[in-house]
Amino acid sequence: MKVIVIGATGAVGKAVVAELGQRHEVVTVGARGGQHQVDFADIASVRGLFAKVGKVDAVVVAAGALHFAPLATFTPEQFYVGLNSKLMGQVNVALVAQEYLNDGGSITLTSGIVAEEPIRNGVSASMVNSAVEGFVRGAAVELPRGLRINVVSPTVLQESMESYGPFFVGFEPIAASRAALSYARSVDGVQTGQVYRAW
Amino acid sequence: MKVIVIGATGAVGKAVVAELGQRHEVVTVGARGGQHQVDFADIASVRGLFAKVGKVDAVVVAAGALHFAPLATFTPEQFYVGLNSKLMGQVNVALVAQEYLNDGGSITLTSGIVAEEPIRNGVSASMVNSAVEGFVRGAAVELPRGLRINVVSPTVLQESMESYGPFFVGFEPIAASRAALSYARSVDGVQTGQVYRAW
Ligand SMILES: NC(=O)c1ccc[n+]([C@@H]2O[C@H](COP(=O)([O-])OP(=O)(O)OC[C@H]3O[C@@H](n4cnc5c(N)ncnc54)[C@H](OP(=O)(O)O)[C@@H]3O)[C@@H](O)[C@H]2O)c1
Ligand SMILES: NC(=O)c1ccc[n+]([C@@H]2O[C@H](COP(=O)([O-])OP(=O)(O)OC[C@H]3O[C@@H](n4cnc5c(N)ncnc54)[C@H](OP(=O)(O)O)[C@@H]3O)[C@@H](O)[C@H]2O)c1
Repeated sequence: MKVIVIGATGAVGKAVVAELGQRHEVVTVGARGGQHQVDFADIASVRGLFAKVGKVDAVVVAAGALHFAPLATFTPEQFYVGLNSKLMGQVNVALVAQEYLNDGGSITLTSGIVAEEPIRNGVSASMVNSAVEGFVRGAAVELPRGLRINVVSPTVLQESMESYGPFFVGFEPIAASRAALSYARSVDGVQTGQVYRAW
Repeated sequence: MKVIVIGATGAVGKAVVAELGQRHEVVTVGARGGQHQVDFADIASVRGLFAKVGKVDAVVVAAGALHFAPLATFTPEQFYVGLNSKLMGQVNVALVAQEYLNDGGSITLTSGIVAEEPIRNGVSASMVNSAVEGFVRGAAVELPRGLRINVVSPTVLQESMESYGPFFVGFEPIAASRAALSYARSVDGVQTGQVYRAW
């Protein structure tokens, strides 16, 4: 299969590339790194990316910014950081991918454990991750030609404990390579509309 | 209790006002109808509303627009209809309500069955309703002073079958008065961070 991984240079994405690269041709995409660059918050940029890469069998997204802050000081603008990036960035990719996926192909997005397990300062993460999961449930029932869409919800990664550790005291971190298995399960599997919990 | 109901003139809101009005002082709010008017998509308008109404014991929101269309033709702009209205409208109310709720007070928002049970043309509804539920999970753990927040997820109402019926073939509609009980359970109850499924 030809698989495009957006966010390929990140903590999650690097492990996904290593896992899928064992048996698939992987096209790596980042904001600045990777073989191709995209700003997925801008659908025109996403269209430009797919026009260059062409037909694929699977699309994986492991990217998206979120604002973390106390609920008491959160502003609407801060909620829009995650809505414009992690939510609509992934939605933009899914919308464009519909046209470039071969029959039976798949889209795999990324949410996160905070969708279901709230943490301090995490109200936007709970909101945006839940929105991504809802989008996947809604899109799965409408995709044509045997196309599939799933979402991986990772817990915090061992590789990210230095930056995220203080937010996740008491959560058991997992290796990125373990989270990557859930992406493989989606890409190489048969299900659609699923939330794969990597925790 | 003094309860403010935003969306009080709608199909859901009218039933909520009838239910809560049996034992509480209800302040009714609409876009054009009701005792006060607000555009909840604009946080400045929400601030103006609460400045007029003052301290309350409970805030209920039963409002919010969503775009329905086939996934294949959905545009980012159409996703933003629901994000700006049903999602951020309710978030704006919750953000401002924090400052105007008496100790132990509650916020009750509205999602919908499509969060969990996808329908044709409903991808934005699945996304936005799930986002509202995620916001509530995330906000519940941070609210101070015994403040609570829940969300009611109604199935389609008998009163709305004329407009929404074709989207919900095979779903069992319920009377708005039954959905209103879930709002009462949130307002008069003790739980927080809950999704009350009215179906
Ligand atoms: N790390 C964790 O513990 C963890 C746990 C649960 C969920 N997640 C989620 O997983 C996703 C990836 O997290 P991560 O920790 O791997 O992030 P990361 O290490 O910061 O990597 C981010 C990746 O996204 C790319 N990117 C940044 N802005 C972009 C844009 N506008 N358009 C397209 N791509 C862009 C980056 O490219 P460049 O390198 O070229 O800038 C990089 O490849 C996030 O949504 C995060 O919330 C992470
Ligand atoms: N009806 C159903 O079967 C059903 C089922 C599940 C979920 N829901 C959800 O429940 C909520 C209410 O639905 P509904 O059927 O009761 O709607 P509705 O009958 O159309 O009523 C909408 C209410 O919201 C108010 N409103 C409109 N725009 C507003 C704005 N910008 N700011 C503040 N208030 C505004 C309206 O005020 P005016 O009357 O003054 O214009 C009215 O009170 C929606 O989020 C809907 O998705 C409905």
